[in-house]
Amino acid sequence: MNKDITFLVAGGDLRQVYTAKKLAENYKVYAAGFDNNIIDFGNAIYTDYKMQLPELVDYIVLPLPASINGVFINAPFCRNNIPISALAPLLKNGGTVFGGKIDPSTMKIFSKCGIDTVDYFEREELNILNAVPTAEGAVQIAMEEMATTIYGQKVLVTGFGRIAKVLVKILKGLGADVTITARKYSDLSWAEIYGCKAVHTSVLDDAISGYDLIFNTVPAVILDEKRLERIKSNTLVIDLASKPGGVDFDTAGRLGVKVVWALSLPGKVAPVTSGEIIACTILNILKERRYTDE
Amino acid sequence: MNKDITFLVAGGDLRQVYTAKKLAENYKVYAAGFDNNIIDFGNAIYTDYKMQLPELVDYIVLPLPASINGVFINAPFCRNNIPISALAPLLKNGGTVFGGKIDPSTMKIFSKCGIDTVDYFEREELNILNAVPTAEGAVQIAMEEMATTIYGQKVLVTGFGRIAKVLVKILKGLGADVTITARKYSDLSWAEIYGCKAVHTSVLDDAISGYDLIFNTVPAVILDEKRLERIKSNTLVIDLASKPGGVDFDTAGRLGVKVVWALSLPGKVAPVTSGEIIACTILNILKERRYTDE
Amino acid sequence: MNKDITFLVAGGDLRQVYTAKKLAENYKVYAAGFDNNIIDFGNAIYTDYKMQLPELVDYIVLPLPASINGVFINAPFCRNNIPISALAPLLKNGGTVFGGKIDPSTMKIFSKCGIDTVDYFEREELNILNAVPTAEGAVQIAMEEMATTIYGQKVLVTGFGRIAKVLVKILKGLGADVTITARKYSDLSWAEIYGCKAVHTSVLDDAISGYDLIFNTVPAVILDEKRLERIKSNTLVIDLASKPGGVDFDTAGRLGVKVVWALSLPGKVAPVTSGEIIACTILNILKERRYTDE
Amino acid sequence: MNKDITFLVAGGDLRQVYTAKKLAENYKVYAAGFDNNIIDFGNAIYTDYKMQLPELVDYIVLPLPASINGVFINAPFCRNNIPISALAPLLKNGGTVFGGKIDPSTMKIFSKCGIDTVDYFEREELNILNAVPTAEGAVQIAMEEMATTIYGQKVLVTGFGRIAKVLVKILKGLGADVTITARKYSDLSWAEIYGCKAVHTSVLDDAISGYDLIFNTVPAVILDEKRLERIKSNTLVIDLASKPGGVDFDTAGRLGVKVVWALSLPGKVAPVTSGEIIACTILNILKERRYTDE
Repeated sequence: MNKDITFLVAGGDLRQVYTAKKLAENYKVYAAGFDNNIIDFGNAIYTDYKMQLPELVDYIVLPLPASINGVFINAPFCRNNIPISALAPLLKNGGTVFGGKIDPSTMKIFSKCGIDTVDYFEREELNILNAVPTAEGAVQIAMEEMATTIYGQKVLVTGFGRIAKVLVKILKGLGADVTITARKYSDLSWAEIYGCKAVHTSVLDDAISGYDLIFNTVPAVILDEKRLERIKSNTLVIDLASKPGGVDFDTAGRLGVKVVWALSLPGKVAPVTSGEIIACTILNILKERRYTDE
Repeated sequence: MNKDITFLVAGGDLRQVYTAKKLAENYKVYAAGFDNNIIDFGNAIYTDYKMQLPELVDYIVLPLPASINGVFINAPFCRNNIPISALAPLLKNGGTVFGGKIDPSTMKIFSKCGIDTVDYFEREELNILNAVPTAEGAVQIAMEEMATTIYGQKVLVTGFGRIAKVLVKILKGLGADVTITARKYSDLSWAEIYGCKAVHTSVLDDAISGYDLIFNTVPAVILDEKRLERIKSNTLVIDLASKPGGVDFDTAGRLGVKVVWALSLPGKVAPVTSGEIIACTILNILKERRYTDE
Repeated sequence: MNKDITFLVAGGDLRQVYTAKKLAENYKVYAAGFDNNIIDFGNAIYTDYKMQLPELVDYIVLPLPASINGVFINAPFCRNNIPISALAPLLKNGGTVFGGKIDPSTMKIFSKCGIDTVDYFEREELNILNAVPTAEGAVQIAMEEMATTIYGQKVLVTGFGRIAKVLVKILKGLGADVTITARKYSDLSWAEIYGCKAVHTSVLDDAISGYDLIFNTVPAVILDEKRLERIKSNTLVIDLASKPGGVDFDTAGRLGVKVVWALSLPGKVAPVTSGEIIACTILNILKERRYTDE
Repeated sequence: MNKDITFLVAGGDLRQVYTAKKLAENYKVYAAGFDNNIIDFGNAIYTDYKMQLPELVDYIVLPLPASINGVFINAPFCRNNIPISALAPLLKNGGTVFGGKIDPSTMKIFSKCGIDTVDYFEREELNILNAVPTAEGAVQIAMEEMATTIYGQKVLVTGFGRIAKVLVKILKGLGADVTITARKYSDLSWAEIYGCKAVHTSVLDDAISGYDLIFNTVPAVILDEKRLERIKSNTLVIDLASKPGGVDFDTAGRLGVKVVWALSLPGKVAPVTSGEIIACTILNILKERRYTDE
């Protein structure tokens, strides 16, 4: 559409390659921070780590997370370190830097040069869309680990946030018998509207023994010793909560409960989609600015 | 379950009759403010407007709204006026008054006597559950007004709040081709996850001509003159937004656009369910107090 | 697309008007047998009952049923009788007559002139597509008759044929708790896969008391005296089976069971869709001939 | 329920272990033809290959297929060959032998002794229920092979039989954009009712290039050279058709089209469920006999 708008995608893993390709469908995109120039970058223009671009760019896109140490770009596909400070001179006056989970040190490098940074990981729609690969990945793990179909199994999902909502949709399509446990009655009402059974967390101790498969989406130790002792012997637990996780892993190990702790699923099971979600989110931000300007 | 806990349901329409019946499945319930003692009150005990109860009660349940004028109970089924001030003496020490949309004057009558009032209409789960009869009622109207099936029709729903979410579920079950329009990208992402097309409000002027049926759930004039002029000649518009509504009704009338403004659907299409939702919400509040006490 | 292909739509009710309009989107269509020439026939050309066409046509489309008496076209919108025998001279050599439920006498009138008749009502896809307005109409009746939402109700559907399958899809979208009863285990397996409970007909006598709403789709007296005596007092029965119906109506009346016998729903609740289904089916038949010719 | 009814489950793989366990929940069951007596047989009684039972049994259950060579039981978990002829003496007078895909030679061994054989693989409900693990297994493969989510992908399913119907349900739950191609208009109508796009096979040559993922369920070479040449370079093809399969594998190999030929999925991805399906089908047969006797 608009080849006058220019991006530099700098660093990242396979996801950023797809972010670059997606953006390059409609814009002029340089991709740097990937040693391997035989990766298919689509319409994006491959550039080595020295980033000698023939022009200044409107936008720079950093990975998720943008930097591990606040000094170099997070660029696992690149042997050379690329200092974050090398980016500012590549940007047009008034340009913007996008990045995921931007740390204060990185942010400061840009703000000192008067450059705006926008953290796309704080956008609600990115986190909603990322719930899709997370939920699919979780279901894939369940399929791989279980000797039964998902169809007909009694499945418990803890919480009814983004990931749980997408999980429910997939599990219902598979024909599972899904129960939601949550603390808020409003969450339980939604769970029922979406075809699930609903169990208030206050009575979960008693209910916990009735499930073949448990997905935890709540960042709190939901499966503590008392509950782990009561679950069925062959129940599979898939913990989707970020550290420290929602399971008392020591007790689970002692009791022989099978637990899979599945973190960072989007980048693992669907890097293409994850990269495209980042591209879409950035484009949404740009569209919003335009509406606001009008 | 517990006949030691006593309720007085005072005033209201058919919904409150069903609130009383639902509560009476497990508790001791008096029902007052209904002239017609031949209505089936189930296990609830019919009492006339003088409310001469043989005992003090734990809880009083007022209708939705609790009062029209802040002096008398809202009791459309009763010829006699029942002053709100007559209720306080019927309540045990430490008892609670539940009501919907309780006005400041009504609230003051109780607070002066040191009595707590709780507005069940402010509970999120009541509003979620009320979205169900609203959405069903809206679909019923569409079925009655249209000479086509809902199946296969192009349907636009504005907004993606509670009512819209339930509407989408029903419309997808019916096989409609559903589009959501909203301003927030997070709403549009959810709409897509739930199988809808998504159109940002900023481009609705162009898209508006493509629909056979439009449900408005947004309390703002979404269908203004410019958009009404562009919708198809036989499009049906069902406005679910409370006053002043989401349609420029004058222009719609002038242009011959068929608009149904459907308000207060839960009480009209499903009084039984609406009454039971109130009962469930009150019981949730009581359960929550118990957990908190523990 | 192809204005060289010509149709005459002769007789029928509102459905045939829409059959004519649909065909006229792509072909040249004459419409006769409707007195009221102010009906909007779209691109179809209005012609009075004398049918003085300026050309011979490729195809004649008769209504459903084609004739009531085997002599005149079934034309409820026309005061004049139109003899079926008047049609043959209007058809090109090798042309075809389409009609619904064509009786032997009507068929003979054409076959004597060497004209092929095709009964579109015998086409499987027409009967599948007609299940949609039937199921929607049935649900509309339930919504109108019940003081509860469909959501949360215990619903029994007898049989798992075309109408039952579409009903289930709609009822699940509405959030009903649906049970299928059938005699064949294969039907029960499908019912479970589509998210229903399944009850073999052999144990229906015991199960029958558990439902708020019953749809009968089976052309046999499923609800006999024994079963009617056991259903709950406020259960609504909607009988979709053609004559003699699936309910012992005398007993139902005596017992005060509320039964709605809903026949011929497609033409009543969705004449537009019903007419378009006929048009689509005729076009499918023509497409099939073309593939076969190739 | 009824420990007077006795079964012998003889031979088979993990599925038959679960058939035995499932039957043993309600009946007395002997399991033979498995060397490893440390497998958990639940309530079933482990017996070695000599099958020295303390009593005659009512029913013998053979695996799927019952025999590879018409002489010995198909018993991959057993080092010793068990002749089919050894079974007849273990059966009560009037008892029945159940088996899957029973070959004529095996059948003859029993018929010579006046023993009835029933092939459970010919039961419609078994094949319906087996479509569930097949469809789940196919989706699992797609998840494992693709670097995108299934959500949002354009998926083509050929045919609309049992497996396709279950696939559609799962894929819609995952949020895929599903198209069905079939030859019969009735299949295409059902596909549309279940929320899919529909493409008649006659125009598939043109449509074939639009999909990211193709599931073939039709036992005919649907993906011939012409079509393989037109599919997108990164399309994944999963062929579920039994031999000779639905893909011209040589051409696919030459063109670099990624094809996974997935056969016998139920036993591979969900042996527990597959075994239980066999048990359920046998119990259905016994129930049917009882109704017929009455």
